[in-house]
Amino acid sequence: MIDRDGLNATDSLGRPTRFEHGAIRFEVRAADRGCSARVGRLTTPHGVVETPAFMPVGTQATVKGLMPDQLRSVGSTMLLANTYHLALRPGEAIIEELGGLHRFMAWDRPILTDSGGFQVFSLAEKAKLSESGVVFRSHLDGRRLELTPESAVRIQERLGADVAMCLDHCPALPASKETIAEATARTIRWARRCREAHTRSDQALFGITQGGPHADLRAECAQALVEIGFPGYAVGGVSVGEGPEEIRRALEGAVHPLPWNQPRYLMGVGRPEDLLDAVAAGIDLFDCVWPTRNGRNATCMTARGQVRLRNARHARDPRPIEEGCDCPACRAFSRAYLRHLFIAGEMLGPILASLHNLAFLHRLTRDMRRAISEGRYVQFQRDRLAALGSES
Amino acid sequence: MIDRDGLNATDSLGRPTRFEHGAIRFEVRAADRGCSARVGRLTTPHGVVETPAFMPVGTQATVKGLMPDQLRSVGSTMLLANTYHLALRPGEAIIEELGGLHRFMAWDRPILTDSGGFQVFSLAEKAKLSESGVVFRSHLDGRRLELTPESAVRIQERLGADVAMCLDHCPALPASKETIAEATARTIRWARRCREAHTRSDQALFGITQGGPHADLRAECAQALVEIGFPGYAVGGVSVGEGPEEIRRALEGAVHPLPWNQPRYLMGVGRPEDLLDAVAAGIDLFDCVWPTRNGRNATCMTARGQVRLRNARHARDPRPIEEGCDCPACRAFSRAYLRHLFIAGEMLGPILASLHNLAFLHRLTRDMRRAISEGRYVQFQRDRLAALGSES
Ligand SMILES: [Zn+2]
Ligand SMILES: [Zn+2]
Repeated sequence: MIDRDGLNATDSLGRPTRFEHGAIRFEVRAADRGCSARVGRLTTPHGVVETPAFMPVGTQATVKGLMPDQLRSVGSTMLLANTYHLALRPGEAIIEELGGLHRFMAWDRPILTDSGGFQVFSLAEKAKLSESGVVFRSHLDGRRLELTPESAVRIQERLGADVAMCLDHCPALPASKETIAEATARTIRWARRCREAHTRSDQALFGITQGGPHADLRAECAQALVEIGFPGYAVGGVSVGEGPEEIRRALEGAVHPLPWNQPRYLMGVGRPEDLLDAVAAGIDLFDCVWPTRNGRNATCMTARGQVRLRNARHARDPRPIEEGCDCPACRAFSRAYLRHLFIAGEMLGPILASLHNLAFLHRLTRDMRRAISEGRYVQFQRDRLAALGSES
Repeated sequence: MIDRDGLNATDSLGRPTRFEHGAIRFEVRAADRGCSARVGRLTTPHGVVETPAFMPVGTQATVKGLMPDQLRSVGSTMLLANTYHLALRPGEAIIEELGGLHRFMAWDRPILTDSGGFQVFSLAEKAKLSESGVVFRSHLDGRRLELTPESAVRIQERLGADVAMCLDHCPALPASKETIAEATARTIRWARRCREAHTRSDQALFGITQGGPHADLRAECAQALVEIGFPGYAVGGVSVGEGPEEIRRALEGAVHPLPWNQPRYLMGVGRPEDLLDAVAAGIDLFDCVWPTRNGRNATCMTARGQVRLRNARHARDPRPIEEGCDCPACRAFSRAYLRHLFIAGEMLGPILASLHNLAFLHRLTRDMRRAISEGRYVQFQRDRLAALGSES
């Protein structure tokens, strides 16, 4: 179905399937006919990511409690790290001096850094917004700092991830459409400044669409970003408490204007039902603290819904978290043991539950890729959604 | 030097070198001529331990934060688990029902359980001692419980470790010699009851000498235990704040009466300088929370002394914890990264520092075995002690 020759390859619908820009290449390798789902391959300076893919979050240059080889063993290929946290501590200068983020955290596969914008607005204290950027106080020590489109890019260049993100303005929701429209317009102006500031040729800079749940604002933003021109595009500002319906409307507006042959990343979304939906809408990349944060909280995902490991009914339960899972937790340990670890306050509980949850999401995206390749994604999505409710 | 034929083999000094009793075999494979250090091989139902050996402590059926495969990768062969903690939570019945401690914690190599006595006297509330045993309240929920020689053995049989320990009476120090003598006499009487209560043929029961820092009490206790007859002997009650001089006096009295061809275990001791000393006195096995507790506290051991990872001088330090160490921490990560993890409160800091500290101690015992085999332990001990002070 896809002409595999050359960069101008197109599929049977005439859509271009290949893209190359500086640091990255992307190829749409298969597409579902019943929806917008596609299988892609993102090639970065640190290797290949088969999409749809889920990126575990390593906020402070570590996915909490997990070693790089454990992440590899459950199928992680690309990680996200948080620019805001790393700029505050230990600071991008130290990370650069020590050889960059890959070397610092001993992850030799792809890394994406966010811009820090989301945290400045949600985590920092007394953020003051102007056209120039945001002045705020560190939530760690009250230091007064400024983040501008230019400094966000500069910090990310020093961190050295494979993919960096534009500084966007993600307004606190709920907000009036007018407020969201202003933030969206600012996001576009800042995206232009980010693109001009970006110089590192072994790093790709992605644009971020804003627009809240308004499909028209999302579409305008996406069109404007495409005109500026980025190697990849993200959908931002949908991980702040929206329901699936609002995510759907945001994606509806944001995805359509984006070039078919470039990667699309939905920021901060990781619930299995949302992944299933977003992939149908044409999303390739995800990140979320959900699997690791829930894991630390003794909640595990399975294809049949959630398992809460602290529950007393698991006290003598010899079963693994999920039958058939080959993760390090399910291969060796019973729910009874995991429950004991959580009740006893042992670190190994959060570690094992996090590993399982990541294994689960990586398995889900792998199954998605197969279903899309075999042209049965719509049925797959329906079956998986139905199964998810069966245990919880 | 050692006649390798048959169970009655002796060395050139006429000492028997082999021992076999039910669950375990022991063989003294080499002995230093300049001191009492020896290289041994302890064979258990779950495999072989080359001695001198250090056993990491898995108090609640987990060595804090570490997976079994990580323990194996740094050279752990035998673990210790705490009967007191496991009997309270999740309870020996659940562990037995789930297939025993090995299966429960997914450690298929040897395990030793202590008797619970030490924790009853140090951790439980309102312990009331009688000849029958100890009545106490759980430090977790105030439940009133009793531990007797018979129940300590029964619980350990249900946990199913390769080596179980007699219930001993370890008095709080400092104490008068008279008080210590009484506790020692009770320890001997309890040891006899433990031996009679013990039935599990795939588990070895070790006796424990008490006697505080008094060489004469230690010797009397050891002789009495040998008359009762155990497959192995431990030196207890020396991990409660004594200096090296007091440990030395305890060992002087306790070790001499013990059969040369049986394993000897010094409980709760893990500082490198103490290990070096105790091996010279003829000890084969050690356990201690020191390497893991210090690791969680950002303190790492090296052959040149301690490295405190929170220290500001490591903020940009690209070196590993210890040059030449092949542990998972030193292979991939800088001191600067480890410091960042500790300052940022990330779980991976304690994990990596614990792994290094265990790797360090396992390497130290491996080097000891080689030095003893080559007949140069006295010089080895001197050199290592001198080096230990060079960085700290
Ligand atoms: Zn699993
Ligand atoms: Zn190391």
